Amino acid sequence: MKSEKEKNRRSFLKQGAATVGGVLAWTEIGSANQLGAPRRAYGERSSFEKSARYYSESVTPASGSSRTPLQDLYGIITPSSLHYEVHHSGVPEIDPDHHELMIHGLVEKPLIFTMADLRRFPSVSRVHFLECAGNSGGEQVGRPGADPQRSHGLLSCSEWTGVPLRTLLDEAGLKPSATWIVVEGADAGRLARSIPMEKALDDVLVAYGQNGEAIRPEQGYPVRLVVPGWEGNVNIKWLGRVQAVDRPYMTAYETAYYTDLMPDGKARQFTFVMEAKSVITRPAGGQELAAPGFYEVEGLAWCGRGRIAGVEVSTDGGGSWQNAQLNQPVLAKALTRFRMPWWWDGKQTSLQSRCTDDTGYQQPTREELLAIRGVNATDHYNGIKIWYVHADGKVSHA
Amino acid sequence: MKSEKEKNRRSFLKQGAATVGGVLAWTEIGSANQLGAPRRAYGERSSFEKSARYYSESVTPASGSSRTPLQDLYGIITPSSLHYEVHHSGVPEIDPDHHELMIHGLVEKPLIFTMADLRRFPSVSRVHFLECAGNSGGEQVGRPGADPQRSHGLLSCSEWTGVPLRTLLDEAGLKPSATWIVVEGADAGRLARSIPMEKALDDVLVAYGQNGEAIRPEQGYPVRLVVPGWEGNVNIKWLGRVQAVDRPYMTAYETAYYTDLMPDGKARQFTFVMEAKSVITRPAGGQELAAPGFYEVEGLAWCGRGRIAGVEVSTDGGGSWQNAQLNQPVLAKALTRFRMPWWWDGKQTSLQSRCTDDTGYQQPTREELLAIRGVNATDHYNGIKIWYVHADGKVSHA
Repeated sequence: MKSEKEKNRRSFLKQGAATVGGVLAWTEIGSANQLGAPRRAYGERSSFEKSARYYSESVTPASGSSRTPLQDLYGIITPSSLHYEVHHSGVPEIDPDHHELMIHGLVEKPLIFTMADLRRFPSVSRVHFLECAGNSGGEQVGRPGADPQRSHGLLSCSEWTGVPLRTLLDEAGLKPSATWIVVEGADAGRLARSIPMEKALDDVLVAYGQNGEAIRPEQGYPVRLVVPGWEGNVNIKWLGRVQAVDRPYMTAYETAYYTDLMPDGKARQFTFVMEAKSVITRPAGGQELAAPGFYEVEGLAWCGRGRIAGVEVSTDGGGSWQNAQLNQPVLAKALTRFRMPWWWDGKQTSLQSRCTDDTGYQQPTREELLAIRGVNATDHYNGIKIWYVHADGKVSHA
Repeated sequence: MKSEKEKNRRSFLKQGAATVGGVLAWTEIGSANQLGAPRRAYGERSSFEKSARYYSESVTPASGSSRTPLQDLYGIITPSSLHYEVHHSGVPEIDPDHHELMIHGLVEKPLIFTMADLRRFPSVSRVHFLECAGNSGGEQVGRPGADPQRSHGLLSCSEWTGVPLRTLLDEAGLKPSATWIVVEGADAGRLARSIPMEKALDDVLVAYGQNGEAIRPEQGYPVRLVVPGWEGNVNIKWLGRVQAVDRPYMTAYETAYYTDLMPDGKARQFTFVMEAKSVITRPAGGQELAAPGFYEVEGLAWCGRGRIAGVEVSTDGGGSWQNAQLNQPVLAKALTRFRMPWWWDGKQTSLQSRCTDDTGYQQPTREELLAIRGVNATDHYNGIKIWYVHADGKVSHA
């Protein structure tokens, strides 16, 4: 293997760095020759950085989605400024000093919490992904996105901090008949969803922190629900109300939307869990390989049931699969970054990844998924994503 | 223990939430009644959030430090906008397309890398703290900071992404005589430090990513050295040059500064590792307890040698110590958040934390440290921090 390693090293060298004869060849062109900018109270990114969320203009700008530029990200934390958005009534401007969270319904003692109240409770911090149920739905119906942002960008991952919902429900005292909760946002549309009590008492957070600071307005400031591993829509933003109830309440977003119409005409409902899924972000659609040589294939994998157990990558149209390396730590219900060295010989080929979660479930092909699901619905699609590498080095979705 | 738990629960309830008679008592005062703001390409924090880095005004604003508001942070990720700063020549504005990193000196083949070159190499992402050697130095000499930001705020933690320095040194091919490297920034002052080769080949990163996006200008955009667990000053920002050499080069920042003058008049030099340390951030100086009752004591612990093995908290002046809970995951050379429930009886007392790392080393008291170090120097101070709780609920450093 040493010769292979040597080959790789030489290739990196050839394409990866200019060789110089000596020190004097260094231009220092990028170096400073005068005092730089002073300190500041709250920093901003470099003006040379242009990465942005993507969204199409619409006549209802407050309603719709924006997508995270997955191909530009590093590691597993999504910068809060680039976290994907899905809003149905726009982003409310909420004064945290006047926001209240009510817990009521089938409880012994209805309670109202101010933000200061919530901050007094024992808190936890956990890294979790959020994914819209509709993410990569275009793949299912044959309208794939041109790049990772457009195909899979309704996906982000943050370190969330907050109080376990269980703690607050314990304070209120659940009645034995309470088997579900209805959670409602304080946005103008009062977006509401039903969640079974088993999940509510498991790992759900009433979160006020995101990546070290207060949750961003687009993500639910000042407080949201984080329902780890479940479709984004139930992770109610601007959380105002938690009602303990004895049945699901059949809100608009669990009847008219976020259900999956199956080939037999029946709709799957309450399909909460986002199943194991992965996508290669480099090299990927919209990018270009400069020349044959050595590349690192990089991507993201995640699953709503627990940890990613492994990711395999095929660079030959699915003929063979190799194990990718997983960046540590691999956390439950969080993005996991994988990478694999790849030698491109300059010929047309394709790149694809498939992941397995710690329940043993393996991400299916598009064909396997469609054989069961059909194409009536676009939510909860988790098929293998294929990027096509052309002989000219261009990478595309077709 | 159930009665104690019940007591705690009732206390939370009493102080932690308003009890209401029914649904109608909920005002919805904070809820929206009209469409909110539209999506946007790059988000910002809520206008209600005011947390900021702290620095004193000076006649040389480009030189000096700013401090992270530790008492405002959640979890272990420091928002990049609030990462502490120490600059000696200000923040240079560097165009990444014109920045070059040279590796030269005792190597077989001197190399120059553009940012595009660096991006092609296999990368890793790791969460690591950075801490200025001078952090909490005021404690050593009896001028403690009034709050966690002023006392311990030269401390932050990010997810860093980049190429292992070892990979680049392997490309250049180290000569057997290369036992140290000199690393130099591209800021106007060309800040330079010497690092022993053993560390350079261990876990050092040539990093271009911070918390998911490009490193911020104040943190070394477009590329910096991350030297996990070692004093901030050697983590050269705006990295321009790595020279393989056969001895330390006795730069200004390892001779005139960042050495520790001992009581016998000799100076410790190359004291790179930041030893195990912790600080309680809530309740802490500058904060106030509204009334006797139940509180969560929260803080941060870290060590430059590996993982935090445990944190103990004393709420009775050091008479007894209880194990705090560590938030997971506990990562090597990263901040670890700890917390412990505490019942305040309304009497004057003090709060302090001491941590132990996975080498078995325990954070010393100030007295233990001063007995060895004296007070000639203020760098590398890691003594136990005590906050005093007064009968009126005010918490202070004295």
